[in-house]
Amino acid sequence: MKKLVVAFLFAAAAPLPLLAQNAPPPPIAVDPKVVALRDAALNDDYAWDITEGLTTEVGQRKAGTEAEARARVWAAAKLRQLGFANVRVEEFPVQNQVRGLESAEILAPFPQKLVVNALGNSASTGPTGITADVVGFDSVDALRLAPDSAVRGKIVFIDHHMPANQDGSGYGQFGAPRRQGPTVASLKGAVGLVIRSIGTDHNRTPHTGVMSFANGAKAIPAGALSVPDAEQLVRILKRGKPVSMRLVLESTPFEGTSGNVIAEVPGRDPSLPPILVGGHLDSWDMGTGAIDDASGVAIATAAAKRIMDAGQPLRTIRIVWFGSEEIGLFGGEDYRKRYGKLPHYAMLESDFGADKIYKVDSKLGDARKDEARMIGAALAPLGVVTGKFDAADGSDIGPMIEDGQPAIGLSQDGTRYFDLHHTSNDTLDKIDPAQLRQNVAAWTATLAVLSGGIEPVPKPSRGKRR
Amino acid sequence: MKKLVVAFLFAAAAPLPLLAQNAPPPPIAVDPKVVALRDAALNDDYAWDITEGLTTEVGQRKAGTEAEARARVWAAAKLRQLGFANVRVEEFPVQNQVRGLESAEILAPFPQKLVVNALGNSASTGPTGITADVVGFDSVDALRLAPDSAVRGKIVFIDHHMPANQDGSGYGQFGAPRRQGPTVASLKGAVGLVIRSIGTDHNRTPHTGVMSFANGAKAIPAGALSVPDAEQLVRILKRGKPVSMRLVLESTPFEGTSGNVIAEVPGRDPSLPPILVGGHLDSWDMGTGAIDDASGVAIATAAAKRIMDAGQPLRTIRIVWFGSEEIGLFGGEDYRKRYGKLPHYAMLESDFGADKIYKVDSKLGDARKDEARMIGAALAPLGVVTGKFDAADGSDIGPMIEDGQPAIGLSQDGTRYFDLHHTSNDTLDKIDPAQLRQNVAAWTATLAVLSGGIEPVPKPSRGKRR
Repeated sequence: MKKLVVAFLFAAAAPLPLLAQNAPPPPIAVDPKVVALRDAALNDDYAWDITEGLTTEVGQRKAGTEAEARARVWAAAKLRQLGFANVRVEEFPVQNQVRGLESAEILAPFPQKLVVNALGNSASTGPTGITADVVGFDSVDALRLAPDSAVRGKIVFIDHHMPANQDGSGYGQFGAPRRQGPTVASLKGAVGLVIRSIGTDHNRTPHTGVMSFANGAKAIPAGALSVPDAEQLVRILKRGKPVSMRLVLESTPFEGTSGNVIAEVPGRDPSLPPILVGGHLDSWDMGTGAIDDASGVAIATAAAKRIMDAGQPLRTIRIVWFGSEEIGLFGGEDYRKRYGKLPHYAMLESDFGADKIYKVDSKLGDARKDEARMIGAALAPLGVVTGKFDAADGSDIGPMIEDGQPAIGLSQDGTRYFDLHHTSNDTLDKIDPAQLRQNVAAWTATLAVLSGGIEPVPKPSRGKRR
Repeated sequence: MKKLVVAFLFAAAAPLPLLAQNAPPPPIAVDPKVVALRDAALNDDYAWDITEGLTTEVGQRKAGTEAEARARVWAAAKLRQLGFANVRVEEFPVQNQVRGLESAEILAPFPQKLVVNALGNSASTGPTGITADVVGFDSVDALRLAPDSAVRGKIVFIDHHMPANQDGSGYGQFGAPRRQGPTVASLKGAVGLVIRSIGTDHNRTPHTGVMSFANGAKAIPAGALSVPDAEQLVRILKRGKPVSMRLVLESTPFEGTSGNVIAEVPGRDPSLPPILVGGHLDSWDMGTGAIDDASGVAIATAAAKRIMDAGQPLRTIRIVWFGSEEIGLFGGEDYRKRYGKLPHYAMLESDFGADKIYKVDSKLGDARKDEARMIGAALAPLGVVTGKFDAADGSDIGPMIEDGQPAIGLSQDGTRYFDLHHTSNDTLDKIDPAQLRQNVAAWTATLAVLSGGIEPVPKPSRGKRR
């Protein structure tokens, strides 16, 4: 026993700096007002009402279409009805495409139809389509390594094995077939391209998404097969016989108008930089854009509404429902042009579904680390882990974060996000109301901390009623 | 203690008939050959090979089409390759329809497109479709109770709330909108009908299925909305504004040829009634018919193959891959006409997917109850419960069971069957290889008992090689 006691005393006498490294940070007392706002938000109905309303009364709202225009009208009316100030639409021009006939038919050796959708910026095959033999690759790199002669005049198929991860990290690496595949195939002389959908489900619902032809590559027809169809094509190719495909991907380009819808909770001190919260209003055209991104604008807006209902924040909260995110972050670009050089107190965007928030990262700068830790402490009871203090991202706000704007990243659980993303299956029934409310609670608590204090709004003195 | 002992003795002295009712049945010793065949089948590859081959090399095989004809050629070749005897195709004529353009577009108050598929025997709207206001009902009974004036000239929508049950029992009651809905709507003067798909999933993949117009009802266009689309229509109708829909359901009738593909494992005593095992070869046209019913013919055939490989059974096993099941059990009807009056030793059909068998019912007659109990004992180690001794069913064989043919019912777990049934999502990736093998093991053990004993096949004496 003696030896053990000595050893223990020796350990306790270790140099102080070493011990200090492991000492817990000083305790944080979360403001009871923040706690109360957070917990009340677990009963929120605003986010559901917005998500249900937008997806039901507008449905799909592809960038630049008349449907997106109807969505802006709907959004402005809803934001006014909720009592927000300075509701406005800021328009900008965009180019996009209308989807037409789409099919991928195996003509030989085993005649059958596969389910396909055009990717954004695909060339059109016209209604009769193109017919060519299919050559398959396991990855974009395998395509790059192939001799041009193996690809020229063919329809290229690119497979991959994207996993479902909580943080959605598969989408970066395994999205390459969609992002780089069309350019690489075109430069090698392919007449068309089909990829395995960038998705983690097994439904006959292809995942579309935007791509562009780079390095002077000529636009060619480019589509996504649903995952079961891609697996079918792999099996057919494995039989070793020439595989002939007729690919029809009709698309018609148009020039249209898009826009951002903006509203505010005016702060007590209008001279202070605002807090930007948002998501994107536009969607792809196959589903009703419930998880992408009706729920995102709904979460941000519900949290701002709950702050507004509690009184007046010190800082202005600016809500932005961005337009044309899906086809190239054009709403974020327009906002950045107009306001990007002005200081913002923080930027936050919700664009990864409506499943629970599991982590909060922040990039508020070293001087505001205590504020970031306070947010972490306020969210911990919701099961949210405090992540990094030098990281945050977002789609529309991404470029402005790179410019140096402070930001908070509330990471949603993306395990099932890529089952639904950019497919016809992105519909209201995929939203879990309980997890949606957890999002609103996390956002509300975060805004309650960032807002600089919420004070009662003095009732305006009324004239006598007559 | 004394009182307890007396009570116990008294109980033991209860009248014998009462005790006899509760006595366990005599123990059953399962033949080690049956056990060995059953357990070896848990490593079966035949069923997967057939399912994979038929769905990959043929794909969809709608009744009466050239695709079903290709499937018969594929089936006969496969059955010959596996070594079965008396492989033959028995053709019969059928009428069916080819699917054309299909859409259900809400024109007002919230313009958007819903996903729809025509039901079997729907009238065609032609390519321009029909436009009318939608009137919604919660059930066929609610439609029946409505005044004709509320329905005349309208497109009727019928909702329901089919649950997912292991035994598939929701399909009977909640299938009414598809089976009776079109007739009731037509007789009340509706110009068209859309139902909530008879399915338990939330994918944008409508469930088709056959129906017919009865009682002199005029054929009208009749389609199934996917479940998310039906829920969307409910929400839209709940807003209380008139809902205008343009419904396009194109279909073109044709007269074609269907047929059954038959093969045999000849028994040692050809004079004995055969055992019929089967499933159906045709499928709906949207998926590749993996669970409905490539896996069914595969399970029945794999089990027969495993018996054949073990030697020669006493009784002939006859394998039937029925044609045109989906459009009205016409394959079963053709077989019944040709052979239905001949005695069969037992009939078994697999047509409920490929998930595990959880129960065995039988209808072999009182004289063969021990045989039925023997089958139950052989299957128990696979987790199969012994069910009733006076029940068994099947789709193609159903009418012959009603005629009095003996039958065994190996019930599959149908919990997720109606997620996929009659949709584009019925593809190979939905088959769980482990559960498929459990099916083959149960079928093999059942056939091993029914076959009357398997003996080594005497090697034919060879002439000298030169």
